Amino acid sequence: MATPSPGYSITLRASTPASFTVSTDIAATLAQAGAALTALDVIESTQNGLVIDVTCDTRNADHAEEIAKALGSMKDVDVAKVSDRTFLLHLGGKIESTPTVPLRTRDDLSRAYTPGVARVCQAIAKDKSDARRLTIKRNTVAVVTDGSAVLGLGNIGPEASMPVMEGKAVLFKEFAGVDAWPVALDTQDTEEIISICKAIAPAYGGINLEDISAPRCFEIEARLRDELDIPVFHDDQHGTAIVTLAALQNALKVVGKDIAEARIVVSGVGAAGHAIIQLLRTAGARHIVACGRNGAIAPGTSQTDSHKQWISENTNEEGFSGTLKEAVVGADVFIGVSAPNLLDGDDVARMAEGAIVFAMSNPDPEVHPQEAGRTAAVVATGRSDFPNQINNVLAFPGFFRGLLDAGATDITNEMLVAAAHAIADCIHEGELNPGYIIPSVFDREVAETVAAAVVEAAKVD
Amino acid sequence: MATPSPGYSITLRASTPASFTVSTDIAATLAQAGAALTALDVIESTQNGLVIDVTCDTRNADHAEEIAKALGSMKDVDVAKVSDRTFLLHLGGKIESTPTVPLRTRDDLSRAYTPGVARVCQAIAKDKSDARRLTIKRNTVAVVTDGSAVLGLGNIGPEASMPVMEGKAVLFKEFAGVDAWPVALDTQDTEEIISICKAIAPAYGGINLEDISAPRCFEIEARLRDELDIPVFHDDQHGTAIVTLAALQNALKVVGKDIAEARIVVSGVGAAGHAIIQLLRTAGARHIVACGRNGAIAPGTSQTDSHKQWISENTNEEGFSGTLKEAVVGADVFIGVSAPNLLDGDDVARMAEGAIVFAMSNPDPEVHPQEAGRTAAVVATGRSDFPNQINNVLAFPGFFRGLLDAGATDITNEMLVAAAHAIADCIHEGELNPGYIIPSVFDREVAETVAAAVVEAAKVD
Repeated sequence: MATPSPGYSITLRASTPASFTVSTDIAATLAQAGAALTALDVIESTQNGLVIDVTCDTRNADHAEEIAKALGSMKDVDVAKVSDRTFLLHLGGKIESTPTVPLRTRDDLSRAYTPGVARVCQAIAKDKSDARRLTIKRNTVAVVTDGSAVLGLGNIGPEASMPVMEGKAVLFKEFAGVDAWPVALDTQDTEEIISICKAIAPAYGGINLEDISAPRCFEIEARLRDELDIPVFHDDQHGTAIVTLAALQNALKVVGKDIAEARIVVSGVGAAGHAIIQLLRTAGARHIVACGRNGAIAPGTSQTDSHKQWISENTNEEGFSGTLKEAVVGADVFIGVSAPNLLDGDDVARMAEGAIVFAMSNPDPEVHPQEAGRTAAVVATGRSDFPNQINNVLAFPGFFRGLLDAGATDITNEMLVAAAHAIADCIHEGELNPGYIIPSVFDREVAETVAAAVVEAAKVD
Repeated sequence: MATPSPGYSITLRASTPASFTVSTDIAATLAQAGAALTALDVIESTQNGLVIDVTCDTRNADHAEEIAKALGSMKDVDVAKVSDRTFLLHLGGKIESTPTVPLRTRDDLSRAYTPGVARVCQAIAKDKSDARRLTIKRNTVAVVTDGSAVLGLGNIGPEASMPVMEGKAVLFKEFAGVDAWPVALDTQDTEEIISICKAIAPAYGGINLEDISAPRCFEIEARLRDELDIPVFHDDQHGTAIVTLAALQNALKVVGKDIAEARIVVSGVGAAGHAIIQLLRTAGARHIVACGRNGAIAPGTSQTDSHKQWISENTNEEGFSGTLKEAVVGADVFIGVSAPNLLDGDDVARMAEGAIVFAMSNPDPEVHPQEAGRTAAVVATGRSDFPNQINNVLAFPGFFRGLLDAGATDITNEMLVAAAHAIADCIHEGELNPGYIIPSVFDREVAETVAAAVVEAAKVD
């Protein structure tokens, strides 16, 4: 199913005979082995031979090895070195701390550091709220993780989470000019994480919790929201919820249905599922059935944690009981934030006419989008190689841009809904169609629009 | 005593008559009031009058107000707005988080973020030591404070400490290419600070403790050195000690004395004093008398904390007892890291011939350098407006550059001594004289030389 991806791009340094046909031979060999050739760069040329850097996308790590072997098995070709271009990109990390003030002369030093800096310190000591004006708190967000639920990789720890957290910081800056810094914690103790976040808060204008496993993420977020005077956002919950609601708003427009009437099945009752259900309800959804591993959550039953309890008390009013496959029969909307291959095309065919399928499990969706597309009216996934990618990048940079600009101390449901509407509205009337319900992650308009909507919503608050 | 400084530079917007002499009148008024005029910029000119931005250095905040009043009291002159140029510089903070990788296309995103990033995470999960290669840990230092002893300002708290911590980060980057990030903690509990530093350590290649009050700073540093596998450096102790030893090495060369024979009096037994004494001993000093508020610390007496205890056990072998003024009689070296105006010119005159005086209390030294200079052979201070400024900026950027380049896990006394020698040796044979024993903070050679020396010392270790 996988196609060659730049995420698995390699460069092979090969020495070859000085033959006229060597390039075309290499290209043919790589094509046959399933790689996507990007470039052939001649590094050295003598009478006896050539040194060529062969760059190509592969399907995965094993495939990359196969490609190197295939190239090396060509007649008179030696593969000297294999460079993994993704690893090269990550060497030394992906962000840096850069001065915004000059420091070339003694005068610069006197103003930026001692003795001038003392007055600035004194001003803040007198009035703490000046920190938002005179320090990086103005524009800076902590990206906090404990490495317990990183991407689909699970509990890989703080060191291994850093490439994701740094990537997040890159996205924050690139899309919304927000300065973000990774705080990867070597503890998974709820109370310790809470007290560390409280202790580091003076330097930050907001906290983005990231890849912390449920149910600890719920308590950490709730407590920090209570106890801190800067906004705290768990992206895996609220970022996902915002973008899902945005996509749903447009998908419903495509099929001409109303959120209040739509029968919605949510597969997955972890952090993302809970937040999606909560936000859908705030936006007017009334018929939601949530499914966990053991099928539909029955209304008002006793659950293992308070968040599942909330779901049981706020969904499935009609008391449906059964499996996920049974739940989707006749449903208008399927939203999956759970596990691969739970449904097939036949299940989707049993949904209502004009069915909407968001299969967001990554990298392998709950149902293959092509199968779902046989009968569904709108299909979206979390992947970039299918249409309608539901990607948090559309939400969090602009959302925090808005929070910082508004000097917000808290996050309200109204802000979350406003952000979702803003993203949805980036698809203009004439552009909307089943293959384009959500803007591209590279649409630079999105973050700005989201930020403006959050600033507006903060005023109402 | 203070002269106008760019740290107190202001810009006054004044509307004036359209007179030919107005500029010279303003210049005269400012000169009389004691300001140093930097610029007169005409912003607007009509038949009726001028709007002029008057920029000048003042002595301090009160003086700045006097200057504004003096200008406003000129005939037909109105001061519309006073801008403090130091505050302008600090607006929004002084550092930012900047991506080092491109993020313009889908291919960029696939490599820097999902899906490519997953492989990088997995590599680190398999081998944690790869974090130094594949994440910002390679080049990043945490500047940790609790805001309890900021500059000479005391316990002003984490928010108010940020302008200093950001300034530190600017210096790290500017002088040694080290990425530093402020961690200003809203707790002054020793155990909590220790556990937070341990928790955040995965993202950092080193920790620079800053402006944490004694004696807590000692325990925090000692424990972290024991319990962490990244180097931990308390700049107020070791940075000061390195630069002091560097200056002393050259000063002794100027007067032709040997450190092992020199009689040294250290005034101040806090964090800096303790570290200086320790480093001087490592470098071969044998005759040190340390003085606290109550005079010389007697040998082997019982002291209030373990660091003063160490001092009592490792100094003053001859059992001198008496006041600071008595201690300096006949001494070769005075090193002050204590309080203003403890000595006068007559005290310095009672020191040995070829006396060396380092009066580093800031902003007001232990003895006025001009008074000390009447009889002392070499005088140094912590101030930039006298010769021989002993400034930590000479040590910490290059020191951490060396630690990071060496992948050091610990700091040794040999590294500290090597760094001091490296700084001292930046003054070449022909350059050395009583007014130039220590390089300028803007000497770009220093950090590089210090880094190389630390890398060498790390190899020996």
